[in-house]
Amino acid sequence: MTGTAKLTRKGRATKERIVSAAADLIYEHGVAGTSIEDVRAAAGVSGSQMTHYFQDKRSLVADVVDHQARVVIELESSPAAGGLDSFEALRRWAALTVQRQVDKHCEGGCRLGSLAGEVVETDLLARARLAIGFAEWERKLREGLQSMSDRGELSPDADPEKLAMALLAALQGGMLLTQTQRDAAPLAAALDAMLTYVESFATDPATVGRRGQDG
Amino acid sequence: MTGTAKLTRKGRATKERIVSAAADLIYEHGVAGTSIEDVRAAAGVSGSQMTHYFQDKRSLVADVVDHQARVVIELESSPAAGGLDSFEALRRWAALTVQRQVDKHCEGGCRLGSLAGEVVETDLLARARLAIGFAEWERKLREGLQSMSDRGELSPDADPEKLAMALLAALQGGMLLTQTQRDAAPLAAALDAMLTYVESFATDPATVGRRGQDG
Repeated sequence: MTGTAKLTRKGRATKERIVSAAADLIYEHGVAGTSIEDVRAAAGVSGSQMTHYFQDKRSLVADVVDHQARVVIELESSPAAGGLDSFEALRRWAALTVQRQVDKHCEGGCRLGSLAGEVVETDLLARARLAIGFAEWERKLREGLQSMSDRGELSPDADPEKLAMALLAALQGGMLLTQTQRDAAPLAAALDAMLTYVESFATDPATVGRRGQDG
Repeated sequence: MTGTAKLTRKGRATKERIVSAAADLIYEHGVAGTSIEDVRAAAGVSGSQMTHYFQDKRSLVADVVDHQARVVIELESSPAAGGLDSFEALRRWAALTVQRQVDKHCEGGCRLGSLAGEVVETDLLARARLAIGFAEWERKLREGLQSMSDRGELSPDADPEKLAMALLAALQGGMLLTQTQRDAAPLAAALDAMLTYVESFATDPATVGRRGQDG
């Protein structure tokens, strides 16, 4: 019943441990396949600690959505990803995104998208948090494209907001098909097509690394 | 326990009624939120009829996947959709797809994609059927693009298979974002971007209706 703001440092750490354990279990078994008791055991907390931090499963799932949104967005901002603000960086980001799916045999899908697929119509609180998570992710992509636009690398015809939405959609749909078919080809094709479209707005073709349907 | 092949005409009709009722309930409440008893009551059959046709929920869900794939693919092939084998037809298809989401206030998402989001990692049988359903859908899109290629409207550089995968990914991801945010903008942006990319392979610009980021 205690809001995060009122928790001690130790309390916050415990709460975060519960959310992190729940996120991993839910990523593997789905929301429906994960019980509060599973999470309690995995986090190594008592039943009274669980009920102290989370009144019900819904409030836990909502925090898991926020957690996964943070994980995904931090991953996009990691030094390995190298920014999202040049044509080259976007190609590197796409290659990394595809490689990550190949490395895990195309299992599991997107940490945020797979949650959305499961609860978006049945859990209003989770949907609200998912909408915020996707909006944050979209903003991250938009900011990179906006920088390119500000530097004059993207033509004034390009709309960074629409391009960011389209890129995130290609990624989410590509992930879902890749996850279902256990084959990275749809994700690779979707990101390649969408980036080639983004590159069609380049003011200087020399700033574009590679384009078209190669590979 | 009876395979569809061995059913009488009346038996097939009863089975189809059960699957159709299950598909509607699951589309609204999700797999986890739909019980065998809910389906039995909605279909108006007895408990022994239910167990006669479906040993367990999994076998019912698998048939629901096939049913939804058929519904979606028939929708794509309807006279209203007007084929998928010209640039104009593809734009009409995209507009219709967006309009359908607007009409239902962006609720529910894709009949097939939303099922995938819920069961792809937790139900092997359903995943196999989903992969078949998506492959069929992709084939439908690919055939249209292949016709355009055969008629010389699409440049030989275009790969109808990759374009079909990319289009379906844009649609699925756009649907998921649109459903989560209750706003058709991501779906519209994703389809517009992907179709403009497809149109970049037109051998004769006059065959392309409209292009770019309008609207």
